[in-house]
Amino acid sequence: MEPETAFIQKYLAPLTSGEAGTLGLHDDAAVLSVPDGHELVVTTDAVAAGVHFFPDDSAGDIAWKALAVNVSDLIAKGATPLCYQMALAFTTAPPASWMQDFADGLARAQKAFGLFLSGGDTDVRNAPLSITITAFGQVPKGRMIQRSTAKAGDRLYVTGSLGDSALGLMLRHDPSLAKAWTISDEQRLHLAHRYLRPEPRVELTAALLECASAAMDISDGLAQDLGKLCAASGVGAIVDGARIPLSDAAKTVLVSDADLFQRVLSGGDDYEVLAAIPPARTMAFESAARAAHVAVREIGALKPGRDVVFNDKAGNPIAFDQGGWDHFRERGNP
Amino acid sequence: MEPETAFIQKYLAPLTSGEAGTLGLHDDAAVLSVPDGHELVVTTDAVAAGVHFFPDDSAGDIAWKALAVNVSDLIAKGATPLCYQMALAFTTAPPASWMQDFADGLARAQKAFGLFLSGGDTDVRNAPLSITITAFGQVPKGRMIQRSTAKAGDRLYVTGSLGDSALGLMLRHDPSLAKAWTISDEQRLHLAHRYLRPEPRVELTAALLECASAAMDISDGLAQDLGKLCAASGVGAIVDGARIPLSDAAKTVLVSDADLFQRVLSGGDDYEVLAAIPPARTMAFESAARAAHVAVREIGALKPGRDVVFNDKAGNPIAFDQGGWDHFRERGNP
Repeated sequence: MEPETAFIQKYLAPLTSGEAGTLGLHDDAAVLSVPDGHELVVTTDAVAAGVHFFPDDSAGDIAWKALAVNVSDLIAKGATPLCYQMALAFTTAPPASWMQDFADGLARAQKAFGLFLSGGDTDVRNAPLSITITAFGQVPKGRMIQRSTAKAGDRLYVTGSLGDSALGLMLRHDPSLAKAWTISDEQRLHLAHRYLRPEPRVELTAALLECASAAMDISDGLAQDLGKLCAASGVGAIVDGARIPLSDAAKTVLVSDADLFQRVLSGGDDYEVLAAIPPARTMAFESAARAAHVAVREIGALKPGRDVVFNDKAGNPIAFDQGGWDHFRERGNP
Repeated sequence: MEPETAFIQKYLAPLTSGEAGTLGLHDDAAVLSVPDGHELVVTTDAVAAGVHFFPDDSAGDIAWKALAVNVSDLIAKGATPLCYQMALAFTTAPPASWMQDFADGLARAQKAFGLFLSGGDTDVRNAPLSITITAFGQVPKGRMIQRSTAKAGDRLYVTGSLGDSALGLMLRHDPSLAKAWTISDEQRLHLAHRYLRPEPRVELTAALLECASAAMDISDGLAQDLGKLCAASGVGAIVDGARIPLSDAAKTVLVSDADLFQRVLSGGDDYEVLAAIPPARTMAFESAARAAHVAVREIGALKPGRDVVFNDKAGNPIAFDQGGWDHFRERGNP
């Protein structure tokens, strides 16, 4: 058996969970069946060392994040996760212990999110480690939740808490901030963990499919992503900053440095869901979310026009226009 | 509009060919329908500068190759190309002229292969340009052609001609070989072109689906890939080296340097199809291939056992065993 085949069979083939269509990664392609009356939702996200994670993050955390950022998109589209293709590009062949940790991390993430590895590609090149995943979910025909279908009057909801990951990243760059922010060890660990291990709200899929008029995941920060949803739907929005859900850790940080509220709104990597819910369905949505044990918070509403207005916690409005978000362009994408 | 969105809309959205499920690349996911009675065949291949192509290859050639190497897998599996997800990782944001050439190259390849862009991901990172594609095709349910289903007695066929790409790559590394090989300018250009622009045998899909008991594309060289097919199917093979289809250019090279026949068999990047055809179907296969204007050549047969035997052009057998292919490991994959 040539080395690449042995590598694939040892570490990756077990991740196919015995699904017949993967052919145990022994072939050049997988075959996927979609149940009658359903469609396939497909999304692609790559993560690379030095851009989306730190080269010294643990292999298990890297694996988790690579899969989580893709599943996050599926969930926001109302899709039930099915499987994924993974292209691994290594700088050099990884040590066995690293690769085993990576495979274990994928196995844990797969179990948490409910999908299996269907195939992929592995190579070595002169570049930082990157993991490019195309993830598949299924939805009843015609039911994928889009960005562009929100209506003025819909209520705006977000899941979980915002800003933790952005603050966790700041801490990672400058650990001395923990002292300046007067956060406890537990709060520091919470923020660090939220950056490392995004939690797609898998349990919310059915509630979103039932109730949302539009949704997307929050990957680039609420401010930018709400702007995208509004632009796609041709509506404006008003958000009550006092209602942005914050963890205890983030609350403590903001007491020390209130200006970081901007970072909470724009920092990115939240991987929470932003959903527009028609007023007639808000009670059903909240009730379904409660039953699914996913925290959701109404933070504002969509309105006619184009303006996306955030009121800060002091009640002062900050207007963002579509073209004026230069300070959100820090991610450096083309 | 933020820069990434503008970039996507300008260069990539036109490649969706107006297919509704792509949502014009305005959303985080695409939705794919599979006709009743069909399944989706999925394959992933990445190409990177310095590994799979040269950084100074033209943008159009890079685009073509990135898509062709994926479509090559679909065709060998009997799948009709449908669409693809593409993750682009740039070292720096590309100049507009380069990006337009790249998009034009994709458009030409899409038209030749019959598929559209369904979605993807774009980022900038400190790494050589890479293009990771997951391509989708469709097959009637249960009909994907596998590697592992060949039987002893099946006849072995390959498409096109072998070794051109490997010789073209040698020429690229050392242009003075053209003189040593006494090839004409036209032959030199032919070999160079075959390395740059693999031609998936799209027109052969129906014939393969109808007649092949097993198939795969030849991407790592006939010797290695036939070994994989035989290992997967639990059979051996005997190949008549005198029947390996060669271009005029490759024939001229082999007159100058007969030892390069090994390279023809093992050099890789052919992207031709290797198919096992049961004896009762060889006439139908040849006739269907002729009707599809795809050259096919019977080069040998599968037999009981495990030995994969190549006879060279002089008729001397060279036996390869499964564990002894160290000289085929030059691609450096883990």
